[in-house]
Amino acid sequence: MSQLQKLDAYFAAHREKHLQELNEFLRIPSISALSAHKEDMYTAAQWLANKLTNLNIENVSIDETGGHPVVYGEWLHAEGAPTVLFYGHYDVQPVDPLDLWETPPFEPTIRDNKLFARGASDDKGQVFMHLKTIEALFALDGTLPVNVKFLIEGEEEIGSANLPAYVEANKEKLAADLILISDTGLYAPGKPAVCYGLRGLAGIQIDVRGAKGDLHSGLYGGGVQNAIHALAELLASFRDEHGTIQVDGFYDNVRPLSEEERQAYRDLNFDEEALKEEVGVKELFGEAGYSYLEQTWARPTLEVNGVFGGFSGEGIKTVLPAEAGAKITCRLVPDQDPDEIVAKLKAHVEKHKPVGVDITISEFDKGPAYITPFDHPVIQAAGRSYERVYEVPTAFIRGGGSIPIVAAFDQILNLPVVLMGFGLNSENFHAPNEHFHLENFDKGLRVLGDYLYEVATL
Amino acid sequence: MSQLQKLDAYFAAHREKHLQELNEFLRIPSISALSAHKEDMYTAAQWLANKLTNLNIENVSIDETGGHPVVYGEWLHAEGAPTVLFYGHYDVQPVDPLDLWETPPFEPTIRDNKLFARGASDDKGQVFMHLKTIEALFALDGTLPVNVKFLIEGEEEIGSANLPAYVEANKEKLAADLILISDTGLYAPGKPAVCYGLRGLAGIQIDVRGAKGDLHSGLYGGGVQNAIHALAELLASFRDEHGTIQVDGFYDNVRPLSEEERQAYRDLNFDEEALKEEVGVKELFGEAGYSYLEQTWARPTLEVNGVFGGFSGEGIKTVLPAEAGAKITCRLVPDQDPDEIVAKLKAHVEKHKPVGVDITISEFDKGPAYITPFDHPVIQAAGRSYERVYEVPTAFIRGGGSIPIVAAFDQILNLPVVLMGFGLNSENFHAPNEHFHLENFDKGLRVLGDYLYEVATL
Repeated sequence: MSQLQKLDAYFAAHREKHLQELNEFLRIPSISALSAHKEDMYTAAQWLANKLTNLNIENVSIDETGGHPVVYGEWLHAEGAPTVLFYGHYDVQPVDPLDLWETPPFEPTIRDNKLFARGASDDKGQVFMHLKTIEALFALDGTLPVNVKFLIEGEEEIGSANLPAYVEANKEKLAADLILISDTGLYAPGKPAVCYGLRGLAGIQIDVRGAKGDLHSGLYGGGVQNAIHALAELLASFRDEHGTIQVDGFYDNVRPLSEEERQAYRDLNFDEEALKEEVGVKELFGEAGYSYLEQTWARPTLEVNGVFGGFSGEGIKTVLPAEAGAKITCRLVPDQDPDEIVAKLKAHVEKHKPVGVDITISEFDKGPAYITPFDHPVIQAAGRSYERVYEVPTAFIRGGGSIPIVAAFDQILNLPVVLMGFGLNSENFHAPNEHFHLENFDKGLRVLGDYLYEVATL
Repeated sequence: MSQLQKLDAYFAAHREKHLQELNEFLRIPSISALSAHKEDMYTAAQWLANKLTNLNIENVSIDETGGHPVVYGEWLHAEGAPTVLFYGHYDVQPVDPLDLWETPPFEPTIRDNKLFARGASDDKGQVFMHLKTIEALFALDGTLPVNVKFLIEGEEEIGSANLPAYVEANKEKLAADLILISDTGLYAPGKPAVCYGLRGLAGIQIDVRGAKGDLHSGLYGGGVQNAIHALAELLASFRDEHGTIQVDGFYDNVRPLSEEERQAYRDLNFDEEALKEEVGVKELFGEAGYSYLEQTWARPTLEVNGVFGGFSGEGIKTVLPAEAGAKITCRLVPDQDPDEIVAKLKAHVEKHKPVGVDITISEFDKGPAYITPFDHPVIQAAGRSYERVYEVPTAFIRGGGSIPIVAAFDQILNLPVVLMGFGLNSENFHAPNEHFHLENFDKGLRVLGDYLYEVATL
């Protein structure tokens, strides 16, 4: 029996038990953005620490960071073999609007061989796969082919603000030959991908204040500025009607796409019709002169993520609202600097400030974009492991999302980052009804096991 | 002792008891806009019906309208005397944002001789004054100087949609010589006003839909339209930066102000600095070429009353929102037609529809503006009664707000409408911390009693 066949048999035999264990993990509502869930964050970290300890992982610790804790563990007895640092996150996104979930977000449910729960795919399900890969290798071989370290954080969904300082302070402890991250997706169902670039993130919240309290729109309407109108004007000024960002200097440092990359993307024959069907829109929308893949992988964005102000209940309330606010985030590409982008957003607000209101700006956590050469040996080996299990050529792609810590790993630890993800874009990562296709849970475990054997030979 | 002195003595002797009774009424959370309060509407109507019955009012009934019920009652034994139809409303506005109330909205509290509660001024407090005026006259004279009818509705704050049909169906029962409404305000503290015109109301809700569900802003951002951006563009298109409305034909039928009216408004020496202080703004905002009083009394408006979409919780959520919505209402002036205005708003949305989204429009209840000659005898008599109690000249003004049913009364019953209100603009009618200055509760009762004696002599 080949190593892959042995892995196959092991995971098949333990599938039910593994899914039950994963459900335990998914039931913990570890929403990092909401302070009400602070205790749940510790519960999730403790759950992971217990699992690692049971896996023979040593020096397991729950380390304070100033925010939600980091879970660390290591096994360093593969003398002379490379060391793999596994990174993942145990925090999840908020779940509203709750009424759009078909089953509750923290009650994992399998329908149609998909596991529905907040975090099923992003990223608890994939972190869990790292653990089960180690479990399988120990069970099959009594040892591991490589040294391993685990670094699992609780603040990825809120920008990983405290992790760079932790990594900086633990540089030696975290030293490794590569970092393996499973928090991205396949290129398409059945078509694996190694992701060699990610977008960065920067954002601000804009709070507009007019009068000191809400006013009667009859008594004052026409003579006092309306906070929502002021905000709407401001929001409308950020982009033109095609989505091209109107902030001065926003595109200054954007690295142009090479002709090779544009050709590689064209070769993927991306199906825009299928995308429209998937997301339910009649027309796509974006910056002129770029394909959808270019727009979402290699061009920066500015999105309003939320807006609020005045009366939003049932029926009518004739109020002249005193307050309104919006949350804005930008996806950044190489070589945009997040601090510089935030400064430009602030300058834009200052330049377009409507009359009759005061504006307060607060910054969100931010991180730069990341890009790595796709001909690096650990990247190419990942492509081979994928192909062995999925039996089709691996695509080398970029990701439109952000894993803020990836750029920090690059800068602080100076290691290649291998993004081997098993999600699918249709899995509603930050939206209601997040789910994970169990086909990729099953195949991904085999890929990861195979990859550790591969890495041992490099 | 003059009639006014007798009223004075009666109201002084019963003040505590009256305030306790009013508090019972204010404790009923009769929010007409929210279906969860349907039962509370009946409780409030029943409370009024009981009070009327105890006051010797006859034929008291709670009449179904298809919406919240109307309370009716009459006393018609003043042979040969005029008949006064008292109109008011027992419904109140919603109370959010609740956390801005210093004391709970439905727990009436007196601070600094002001009664704080939702409805204290608009309009339960003033409806209650009508009842206590009748009580005083019966107590003092054993009879009333005029015939009276009561019509107290429960849908004023949601546009009085069902009342016109009720009034039409009960034309004969409601026949009278004048309608007396106390739902407006003094011109300023200590300065009474008879209001001879009101603005009308029309409005729409705009619901924008992009993708079929919220999307991950990293995976799809840059390639799919954002519902909030689309909405913001649309909202920004409705007004220019000075608040002048950009809807085609919006100002077509606006009746220009006469030079006499403009002069009368100038003579009121409106204190714009005091207004800025009161509402807490550094600068006023409005249509160029018009004074604040003209902007708010005689010019139409378009206000966004509420906006919603995406993530509005604490922190950051990098979502590409699929849905966003806004509520818009316009204050109308003579001779704008509400149906025509709604049609123009819809045409504007159609004309400015952003790409990549679907838009749904729903209409709110609407009513035309109202204006009445201020030299009518019942109007002038109201001015005299105010002056007798407040001891300063009465101002004859217009109101910026809307009492949708006023225009309907005019059209259906063809009677003069006397708007004798006792509120103050600073009393937060539709906002947190609504209150009523008890000084005007006390004086208003005397004014109303005096006025009924006056009307008997006309």
